[in-house]
Amino acid sequence: MSNDRQGASGVAGEEAIIQGFLAPLAAGFAGAFGLKDDCALLSPEPGTELVLKTDPVAEGVHFLPDDAPADVAWKALAVNISDLAAKGAAPIAYLMALSFPAPPSSDWLAAFAQGLEQAQKQFGCHLMGGDTDRRPGPITVSITAVGSVPRGGMVRRNTARPGDSVFVSGTLGDAALGLLLRRNARLGESWGLAPADAEHLRRRYLRPSPRLGLGAALRGHSAAAMDISDGLAKDLSRMCSASVCGAQVGLAELPLSPAAGKALAADPRLIMAIAAGGDDYEVLACVPADKASDFVAAALLSGVRMTRIGILSEGSDVIFEGAGGVPVSFPSSGWDHF
Amino acid sequence: MSNDRQGASGVAGEEAIIQGFLAPLAAGFAGAFGLKDDCALLSPEPGTELVLKTDPVAEGVHFLPDDAPADVAWKALAVNISDLAAKGAAPIAYLMALSFPAPPSSDWLAAFAQGLEQAQKQFGCHLMGGDTDRRPGPITVSITAVGSVPRGGMVRRNTARPGDSVFVSGTLGDAALGLLLRRNARLGESWGLAPADAEHLRRRYLRPSPRLGLGAALRGHSAAAMDISDGLAKDLSRMCSASVCGAQVGLAELPLSPAAGKALAADPRLIMAIAAGGDDYEVLACVPADKASDFVAAALLSGVRMTRIGILSEGSDVIFEGAGGVPVSFPSSGWDHF
Repeated sequence: MSNDRQGASGVAGEEAIIQGFLAPLAAGFAGAFGLKDDCALLSPEPGTELVLKTDPVAEGVHFLPDDAPADVAWKALAVNISDLAAKGAAPIAYLMALSFPAPPSSDWLAAFAQGLEQAQKQFGCHLMGGDTDRRPGPITVSITAVGSVPRGGMVRRNTARPGDSVFVSGTLGDAALGLLLRRNARLGESWGLAPADAEHLRRRYLRPSPRLGLGAALRGHSAAAMDISDGLAKDLSRMCSASVCGAQVGLAELPLSPAAGKALAADPRLIMAIAAGGDDYEVLACVPADKASDFVAAALLSGVRMTRIGILSEGSDVIFEGAGGVPVSFPSSGWDHF
Repeated sequence: MSNDRQGASGVAGEEAIIQGFLAPLAAGFAGAFGLKDDCALLSPEPGTELVLKTDPVAEGVHFLPDDAPADVAWKALAVNISDLAAKGAAPIAYLMALSFPAPPSSDWLAAFAQGLEQAQKQFGCHLMGGDTDRRPGPITVSITAVGSVPRGGMVRRNTARPGDSVFVSGTLGDAALGLLLRRNARLGESWGLAPADAEHLRRRYLRPSPRLGLGAALRGHSAAAMDISDGLAKDLSRMCSASVCGAQVGLAELPLSPAAGKALAADPRLIMAIAAGGDDYEVLACVPADKASDFVAAALLSGVRMTRIGILSEGSDVIFEGAGGVPVSFPSSGWDHF
């Protein structure tokens, strides 16, 4: 693998990397100056505020060494854009710092840039600046994304209230199951999955789709929202902690893709991966009861299905109920680096 | 050394790192939400534009393993703020992604946060968001800094013209000599330096001071500017390449600190380190002849001495003249990671 991206075919010089592979990604953004200045310039629209996020990804930690460079690029941008989406923000542009332990090959860079181009086209943003260096350790892609909201429009995490309905977008657990399949392809058979099912789960892990369509619905109707990146169990606990409330969620209510539904039917223990695994990049939104139906309708209009999975409560207990209302606990819920 | 920052005394959990050590750095910036939301919010002042920069630093590449954590923190922020300063921008806030190969100790984190606090107080900005993770490889501090300029006020790199005077701020070469001293303390004696001289050079390497006072002078009088981070020789070549011109610089004109002057007198070969070494974080500014005296006066008013070191020319040759006008070449000029 390492020969694919370093050694004799390595690209020589930061300038060659920047101008040969990265500058085309900045072509549509005037304030990037073709990546030929030291800084980027961003002119905010009057009446807007900026929403900013940085979330780096590193090989071996956030992506696997045999992931295709185009998938790595997509995911590196998507994980940041997903945060903006959950805040009701529209992406504008991003900065990217790349670090390599050895000069990358032209092939690797070309595929990586192609993945970024697909992603930024899908998400509606451009590269506006960055840095490239060489250092020991894993390949690292550090993106800082900037989006905009109408002034006062950013959807917060700590503004949910007891009584709010808890919604999630799309389906949960696909990426966590996709990662299990990446590590052991035979699981697909034991789960009774057709090849297309397995491919769906793998793709959901590799190419998350930030829910950008939800912006207006979130800003207009939700009390609080965040993206689900470290697993529903952990992220809902964070939301409740920030908003000083508890929650009651029915595990049977979690929206599943047909593939995840088949897998769960074959092995009920997978509910742990589905509810506490990471990399969903769906939106968790808390919505006052009187706005819930308008919220669901507005989301549907933008093409996103929201599913009500529970309700916020007084106190601080975040309770997941299994079959027959029995509480299920997630002893080590979600990903923590330390 | 590694025992100082990991192992039994390691801080447990991302939340403990963020809330215990980093949140106080964000206390002065409302849009940081105490580092308890997923994104930061920035409300640009009407009539301003934003200038953005990301430049990560890694242990063993950009700083030394035995550098004090407070110095590492200062430099990680300063290298980004220096870019903003050279563009005429005033810092507002920054995002920071930290990565550690092992849990850092409380002592390391406390000292690191103290260095950042000193730096952000000096530079007039606050932490507004970020990320903390664990991965193999060196400790890495990835900062993205955001500043503001009056609309249309950002000073570019590609707008210099033949005939412009070439100025640099402060003194050159101190940091490069300081790094040589860090690697071999005996050099100080052979250069005839007093202990205070050597300390001055070391400190210039460890604690660069972005020239933030220059903003108004640069915006009002300069044609183009950039900061000098990879050595004057390389950065002047970049400026000339972007502006499609050449330059003629007198090595005898380079402004030196008393310490650097003594070292150069003792070993004339050090002119290479002074003119082509890195980490100056001074400002390189090109100024039309009719604005030069106003520029120098405006800079002085803000406490920064600008020195004219040469002139931009037609063509593309960047010529450094030594004694008697003899051209001196810098075969491998400046730092390149690849």
